Amino acid sequence: MDADLLIINAAQMLTCASPDGPKRGAALADPGLIEDGALASLEGQIVAVGRTAELLALLDDPAAAHVIDATGKVVLPGFVDPHTHLLWAGDRAGELEQRIAGATYMQIMQAGGGIMSTVRATRAASLDELIAQTLPRLDTMMAHGTTTAEVKTGYGLDLDSEIKMLDAIRLLDEEHPMDLVPTFMAAHAVPAEYAGRTDAYVDLVVEEMLPAVADLRYTVETVEGEYYVRAADFCDVFCEAGVFDLAQTRRILEAAAELGMGLKLHADEFEPIGGAALAAELGAASADHLVRTTDEQLASLAASDTIAVSLPGTPFGLGHHDFTRARRLIELGGALALASDLNPGTCWCESMQFIVALACRYLKLTPAEAINAATINAAHALNLGRYVGSLEAGKQADVLVLDIPDYRHVGYRFGTNLVETVIKRGAVV
Amino acid sequence: MDADLLIINAAQMLTCASPDGPKRGAALADPGLIEDGALASLEGQIVAVGRTAELLALLDDPAAAHVIDATGKVVLPGFVDPHTHLLWAGDRAGELEQRIAGATYMQIMQAGGGIMSTVRATRAASLDELIAQTLPRLDTMMAHGTTTAEVKTGYGLDLDSEIKMLDAIRLLDEEHPMDLVPTFMAAHAVPAEYAGRTDAYVDLVVEEMLPAVADLRYTVETVEGEYYVRAADFCDVFCEAGVFDLAQTRRILEAAAELGMGLKLHADEFEPIGGAALAAELGAASADHLVRTTDEQLASLAASDTIAVSLPGTPFGLGHHDFTRARRLIELGGALALASDLNPGTCWCESMQFIVALACRYLKLTPAEAINAATINAAHALNLGRYVGSLEAGKQADVLVLDIPDYRHVGYRFGTNLVETVIKRGAVV
Repeated sequence: MDADLLIINAAQMLTCASPDGPKRGAALADPGLIEDGALASLEGQIVAVGRTAELLALLDDPAAAHVIDATGKVVLPGFVDPHTHLLWAGDRAGELEQRIAGATYMQIMQAGGGIMSTVRATRAASLDELIAQTLPRLDTMMAHGTTTAEVKTGYGLDLDSEIKMLDAIRLLDEEHPMDLVPTFMAAHAVPAEYAGRTDAYVDLVVEEMLPAVADLRYTVETVEGEYYVRAADFCDVFCEAGVFDLAQTRRILEAAAELGMGLKLHADEFEPIGGAALAAELGAASADHLVRTTDEQLASLAASDTIAVSLPGTPFGLGHHDFTRARRLIELGGALALASDLNPGTCWCESMQFIVALACRYLKLTPAEAINAATINAAHALNLGRYVGSLEAGKQADVLVLDIPDYRHVGYRFGTNLVETVIKRGAVV
Repeated sequence: MDADLLIINAAQMLTCASPDGPKRGAALADPGLIEDGALASLEGQIVAVGRTAELLALLDDPAAAHVIDATGKVVLPGFVDPHTHLLWAGDRAGELEQRIAGATYMQIMQAGGGIMSTVRATRAASLDELIAQTLPRLDTMMAHGTTTAEVKTGYGLDLDSEIKMLDAIRLLDEEHPMDLVPTFMAAHAVPAEYAGRTDAYVDLVVEEMLPAVADLRYTVETVEGEYYVRAADFCDVFCEAGVFDLAQTRRILEAAAELGMGLKLHADEFEPIGGAALAAELGAASADHLVRTTDEQLASLAASDTIAVSLPGTPFGLGHHDFTRARRLIELGGALALASDLNPGTCWCESMQFIVALACRYLKLTPAEAINAATINAAHALNLGRYVGSLEAGKQADVLVLDIPDYRHVGYRFGTNLVETVIKRGAVV
């Protein structure tokens, strides 16, 4: 066996392996721990994972590889962040003070602040400005261990501005080692020019924007020739009282499904209007937020193939005390993932380590459960479970080395960065 | 005027200046903002602060100084962390899982875990091991902007082990650029060998340990000759139901005061037994935690010179929902400071930036209030308000440069490190 990268002697290596789909129930508590662990990769792909002595014995020429000695350290799969709004212009530092003074998120949004404030800044920014403002966030995410991230549009809300966001995602994906998964989310808010005419905006999304985005392809040039990628893998809707109701959400997502896009929903962040069961019914890849979801709706979700994505950084960012009832979902057999929800309003937090720490405290996940939710299950929320999210032969070599003696320090410690080395597709970043 | 260090062109410089003592009421909301700000220091001391053009005009030879251009950035005083247990051996990652499974902090402690587990590891560690395990934490604190920190003993709980901790603090203070303020806290828990005999342990603390520690002096050698420093500036007691009651706390602190030590109290972390008013009555420098403090006790504290130190990282670390009622304390005219409570059980968090972010969410402080509480008021909680905690001529040049366009990003963003450059006593760390 050949390898160009070797990680050896890890005090603990967590594989998070789950060959048959996302982890549910007791499997979520199993991190796939290997003591004295090692990993070999070749040309960006993992070729073997196991105990150091056994793995070294498999190699024809261990000296041919770049070797990382992880003695006394912990090795994990790169984090997958399956729900972000990481692409935006401007900031909303002032909103924090409005909230401290007592304004709610929905009050600020309805007064033209919140998402609408970022829409104005993002529409006004050039493609280059948008990319330049976003690049430092990608660097910070990767420095904290995220190696694959979903990115939503939804700060454009007109076709040109939404396509500008998709163009930016494509260019950032090419320029930065992070792998980005684009989601089209024109149904993130009703733009000012459609105020009070939500159905007319839904018409625009369904009849003009979705078909245009579904047709949009980007050319990728490689040494082996050109190929094409879709501009958006998923379509997402902010299904919430006062934003898009259940019927409007259904209309948009059914149209997106017909055009071959994967589906996602923002469900039950502030009020339970039925998004979780709709996600399950439509076969969405994920239903996200789930703070106010009823028992009955949690049960529908748990019985489906839809991943439940909890975003604890958002209630935290808002200073709230209610979080996704993750333990109930796990008891019901649901597949839980974690994401950052990185965005300029409620959660400017690039660190999935911090999201894990929040989940251990306010979702009552063990560190092992939270790490699985932030890696393999998060990959499944992006339909990428076969490619990333665990350390298994055949998967992309997205690997973290952490300078900690026990994996449970992720979760136990908070507010700092425990990642020492980030490896993306077999290369040290 | 001469200077050896110049910081110029800061988009925003916050002085946090408060020449007449800690900030209270409306003053706490004033960060002392200077636009296009500059600072000059000489031999580790600030010599001038003001607008860039005006400050440069005061200098005889601006080219003689090391210049930091802070264009587009924010400059703040170094954070002062007035309550930490940063010196320990071992870790308690397993306790997080016990708490997730439902055990309370006091249950874990009473079963011989919690503080007692760290006492066993700290007693067993050599002085060198204790220092080696602690140094990375000092590095992390300083990288996140803390330039002065209090450190408590209290993981020794016998005279030799407590003195080993004081020796370690002294050596770390010499070795590391961070300034450390030692607090003697043998009354952190009742050691196993005194289980059920709290009064006998209080006898030991009062009759043997306190006099020995009060007599202990360390020699400091300088080019100008030798001088002596006290081994402990403060004495602190964990005044809490099931640990040390009000009478035991009073006895220890009165003995410490007679020996010339400053006083601190852990008050009302889990149950309100009267520590806050006792701190005020005894003229303690600070009363810390204050999660369960009654209105009447908050009023006593607010009317006194004792600083109220809130430690929001601890309820957060425990996954609790109750925090210091900081707004009530501010309304009552109290002087509020923030600290990390960095410790291996409930709050392994080195970052005062994260503590500020917590305070903005769960204490409902504005970023300006939280930054003042983490700098100038925190300095007063250590009786160091004349030396550190603000950017004013005559003070130590402990200064941070943050790569953010608006100071409110501290608080607004969380889970990452916004500090770009740390300056301690006029030198870039």
